[in-house]
Amino acid sequence: MKTFPECIPCFIRQSIQAAKFAGAPPVKQKEIADKIEDYLKNINMEDIPPKTSRNMHIEIRKLLNNEDPYKTVKDKYNAIALSMYDRLKEIVNQAEDKLLTALRIAIAGNVIDFGAQIEFELEQDIKDVAIFDYERLKEKLEKEKEILYLGDNTGETVFDRVFIEEIKKIYNSKIIYAVKESPIINDATKEDAIFAGLDKVAEIISTGCNSPGIVLEYCNKNFIDLFNNSNLIISKGQGNFETLEQEKKSVFFLFKIKCNVVADYLGVPKESIVIYNKFPS
Amino acid sequence: MKTFPECIPCFIRQSIQAAKFAGAPPVKQKEIADKIEDYLKNINMEDIPPKTSRNMHIEIRKLLNNEDPYKTVKDKYNAIALSMYDRLKEIVNQAEDKLLTALRIAIAGNVIDFGAQIEFELEQDIKDVAIFDYERLKEKLEKEKEILYLGDNTGETVFDRVFIEEIKKIYNSKIIYAVKESPIINDATKEDAIFAGLDKVAEIISTGCNSPGIVLEYCNKNFIDLFNNSNLIISKGQGNFETLEQEKKSVFFLFKIKCNVVADYLGVPKESIVIYNKFPS
Repeated sequence: MKTFPECIPCFIRQSIQAAKFAGAPPVKQKEIADKIEDYLKNINMEDIPPKTSRNMHIEIRKLLNNEDPYKTVKDKYNAIALSMYDRLKEIVNQAEDKLLTALRIAIAGNVIDFGAQIEFELEQDIKDVAIFDYERLKEKLEKEKEILYLGDNTGETVFDRVFIEEIKKIYNSKIIYAVKESPIINDATKEDAIFAGLDKVAEIISTGCNSPGIVLEYCNKNFIDLFNNSNLIISKGQGNFETLEQEKKSVFFLFKIKCNVVADYLGVPKESIVIYNKFPS
Repeated sequence: MKTFPECIPCFIRQSIQAAKFAGAPPVKQKEIADKIEDYLKNINMEDIPPKTSRNMHIEIRKLLNNEDPYKTVKDKYNAIALSMYDRLKEIVNQAEDKLLTALRIAIAGNVIDFGAQIEFELEQDIKDVAIFDYERLKEKLEKEKEILYLGDNTGETVFDRVFIEEIKKIYNSKIIYAVKESPIINDATKEDAIFAGLDKVAEIISTGCNSPGIVLEYCNKNFIDLFNNSNLIISKGQGNFETLEQEKKSVFFLFKIKCNVVADYLGVPKESIVIYNKFPS
């Protein structure tokens, strides 16, 4: 997916958000935005948006002199998400279709962003998930015993764990859970995955890259080989969709559509929750 | 209300939107955004956001060489809204509390923006309006027989008409409906108000200014005098709230909160629908 003009204000919004989360006062936030605007004048609009976002955040971190502006927010969401684990397990255990419920929870976890009222949204989103490729995903789970699972946000990791535990219980699969090499926005790193207890149920690996989404040209050889050779890939989040949708590879994308650009691209309303696979076979 | 750093990406989003609605291709949209970013570097952050927005849109119109980039969209929304008039009247006539229902409809009309699925949202929003100062507004309507009604968007005008007709039926009031002097974003002008049939139920006047919201320093003397001398002012839309909330004047602000800046300012969630009056007496 290339960059659309509408991505520009969203990039600038991110620069202000990063400055704010890093504790910068409003005057400094505006200053960062002004500088990032100049940076964005020279980007390649043919690039996938998360590639630009990754490089822009390197600039932002330099301007803020802060290696992880989102640290405080990430820690908060990690803690909130982990405190919800027992309740999520209870919801799964009481469900008739346990796998489907766990899958819904994993996607609901993708909704965790920087908003308030997480509890409320969770209940809502567990009910609202539109399941498109569920049956095909089940067929694949039956057949393929090794899964490459592409993580997304901090906190969402706890929701992924609930889904992964259910997959393992039913299919006895081996899971490889891929995270970012180093902090970028609120994306999960190895540390965050371990905090969520994912190391108990999956092998945690790094993509080798620190972009939101997975920009293959920035990933390490190990990850690229794994990606190319995997027969079942489950991918979380819009960022991964933006960066991987053009690959000729069967990937189950699980995410909530968070912007009009992607909504228009897929021809569905913003806020839709999708399970999308271009090449399901 | 002053300008917050978060307003900057929103201004830039507006510049891209204007270019898009005017039919500019993506490359031109990005070009406009780049130029507007430079413009925004020198704005006064102490100004109220609609003042900056007004001056920025003068720049945008020059860059696009187009006096009304939103014309096509406005015409479309005018037509859609007018086609809903009979149904809105029916909803009011079947209601137990007709005034309250008409009031809800007027606020629901504020939700009309550039989204799809207007029908659906209307049903939802008519139910969801949170009424805070309804009783006090009724007391005022009982006492004051001349109302200055500050309009907002094109299309919303039809919804205002339904509310105004109900007010006139019950209180026999005289209504002065204020609109923008010339096109700005999707705000209603005299032409739009007449299209909605407001001239049949109100005296339509111009504020003399072409900013979103009502920036008093840009308004004509007639409007400023009227504003200062009115005993009952009903104001529609967030823009009017942003520009008039700091005035020491009893104004009933009816609007849906469309951004986080105003939501944080009022301490309520985004998307809230409010009837707000700082000085109700």
